[in-house]
Amino acid sequence: MFAIVMAGGSGTRLWPLSRRRSPKQLLALTGDTSLLQQTVARLGTLLKPHDIYVITSQAHVRATAEQLPNLPADNILGEPLARSTAVAAALATVLARRESDEVGLVLPADHFVADEAAFAEALREASRVAERGYLVTLGVVPTHAATGYGYIRAGERLHAASPSALVERFVEKPDAETAASYLEGGGYLWNAGVFVWRTYAFRQAIERFQPELAAALERIEALRRTPGWMSDVRDILGAIPAITIDVGIAEPAAAEGRMAVVPLDAGWSDIGSWSSLLEALTGANGKDLVTSGQHLDRGSHNVLVHGGERLVVTVGLDDVIIVDTPDALLVCHRDRAEEIKGVLDEIARTAGDRYL
Amino acid sequence: MFAIVMAGGSGTRLWPLSRRRSPKQLLALTGDTSLLQQTVARLGTLLKPHDIYVITSQAHVRATAEQLPNLPADNILGEPLARSTAVAAALATVLARRESDEVGLVLPADHFVADEAAFAEALREASRVAERGYLVTLGVVPTHAATGYGYIRAGERLHAASPSALVERFVEKPDAETAASYLEGGGYLWNAGVFVWRTYAFRQAIERFQPELAAALERIEALRRTPGWMSDVRDILGAIPAITIDVGIAEPAAAEGRMAVVPLDAGWSDIGSWSSLLEALTGANGKDLVTSGQHLDRGSHNVLVHGGERLVVTVGLDDVIIVDTPDALLVCHRDRAEEIKGVLDEIARTAGDRYL
Repeated sequence: MFAIVMAGGSGTRLWPLSRRRSPKQLLALTGDTSLLQQTVARLGTLLKPHDIYVITSQAHVRATAEQLPNLPADNILGEPLARSTAVAAALATVLARRESDEVGLVLPADHFVADEAAFAEALREASRVAERGYLVTLGVVPTHAATGYGYIRAGERLHAASPSALVERFVEKPDAETAASYLEGGGYLWNAGVFVWRTYAFRQAIERFQPELAAALERIEALRRTPGWMSDVRDILGAIPAITIDVGIAEPAAAEGRMAVVPLDAGWSDIGSWSSLLEALTGANGKDLVTSGQHLDRGSHNVLVHGGERLVVTVGLDDVIIVDTPDALLVCHRDRAEEIKGVLDEIARTAGDRYL
Repeated sequence: MFAIVMAGGSGTRLWPLSRRRSPKQLLALTGDTSLLQQTVARLGTLLKPHDIYVITSQAHVRATAEQLPNLPADNILGEPLARSTAVAAALATVLARRESDEVGLVLPADHFVADEAAFAEALREASRVAERGYLVTLGVVPTHAATGYGYIRAGERLHAASPSALVERFVEKPDAETAASYLEGGGYLWNAGVFVWRTYAFRQAIERFQPELAAALERIEALRRTPGWMSDVRDILGAIPAITIDVGIAEPAAAEGRMAVVPLDAGWSDIGSWSSLLEALTGANGKDLVTSGQHLDRGSHNVLVHGGERLVVTVGLDDVIIVDTPDALLVCHRDRAEEIKGVLDEIARTAGDRYL
């Protein structure tokens, strides 16, 4: 078994901490180590370092390697052009030259998991299901009627003794009412973007559902290690569309009954915004005040302070996120953290690129 | 006529902008100039620079003089020991050597006035009443049931054509219910700490109500300009108690029918806390977002941002005060700004003196 850690994100919704040069996965958001370091450490209970690959943009290869001194340098793969998750996972599989009968695990670099043991157990179960030829995904057991995640409708159980099931279908991010009905009715799981499959099954699915990508991969394999080949890879990737695993592989595979889901109940969060970080950490700690840096408080609740060098004093706040960086300060209501992405457009227009 | 600007305050409730070295009156809180500079400029419509004196602690004489280059250097008076407002006003009157028949105006350095013309007109009226021998104070027409100010109960009108009245009595800061009844019933004004009187009347009141202070002033006058006299002044002041004008002079004078009040309706605020600054500036501007420095907002209301060098972004906040300084950040609910004074004790204990 081997793993491909997908580290291509930019995490604009975590501005002002995340910037172009320091994307979300490289940030220490939930402790002393970065989300990427935590993801790799989490895999360390299942895999040896040489079986863990990270694919990231070429601009971030160096910083990524510096954060992961225990991984072989060749395992940090630089993507010459971003073409979304299906292309990145396929390219990494080709670059890693893994055997077709191996189980490959594809997972995001920037997610949070509170219960490491439960996560490892879910991956082991997913690996067993993948051995049987299924494309497998993890489905997070919902804790609330979230509207920020896509959902997976679980179908028929694979067998009675296991919680794993066929995926009936994937559904888009729902509105609040629909999300509530999913939670109420049961049978729906959050799409966590974690996939487990035998390499041959993944390649077969690409050939069936994304023939253009399959052809591109063949050309890349033929070019391998010729002088300046990464420039050619860039051209090849530039000629195909961006394809997500969800839409390009998982949905059509589910429609043909080839997709399975393993439930995950491990305090998972995608840390998609400051408010989901606050939620994840209050859930993990049982406290409603999450702080880093030097901080004093009087009577605040549901407050996240991501501090830097300065003393931060909070008094009587409810539901507020404070992110303090050397050149920019964010103070945001927790229910409106999703708007930061839009604010960045305004910053670029009025305050300049240096804050991005 | 001459004025004594009382600049002895520390303004701890405006931390982290106000510090020991930069007390409230020296800060630019309401525009590009400091409250002290605005106070002196406001007097400039009534008085010449050599008739304006500022009394401050000796530690702040230099910074005070630097902010007021148009005032004669001798008009910045250094108080060798703080002994509250009655002592400071009396000492300044002695040091200024003004004639006994002149009208002296005593006012705080750190208050805000939106309507300068109305303020000047009230002072002219107060001066006319003071000419007749009364000790005069300005009473602010209440705009809401404030519990943070002392009140003045106005009595009999001095004459029909004028709004000036005898002071019936001074009352302490009321509770919310009492404050509401004052506003409802009328006849109560806020005590703004502004006094106008002929110098002889002030000295006479000191002799009558504060004989210890009167004796101290005589000793100081006798010492004047002997070598090292300020050290002796310090000893003399150290031997008498701290006395406020309100309690030590105005209240007993009112009890004897010698105190008059001139109503002031000029958008006045004592800027006693960040929340009163927010209130004063939203009242003056008709906006509910008061900001300085580089700032971007989405959908916040009743928010004060006192920014510094950094970009500040606020999203969806209500009733929040943000004060950004190079080494400390405050984020505070506007209704709890009074607690900052208490927070400072905790800062001194846990984070150290360097933040004070």
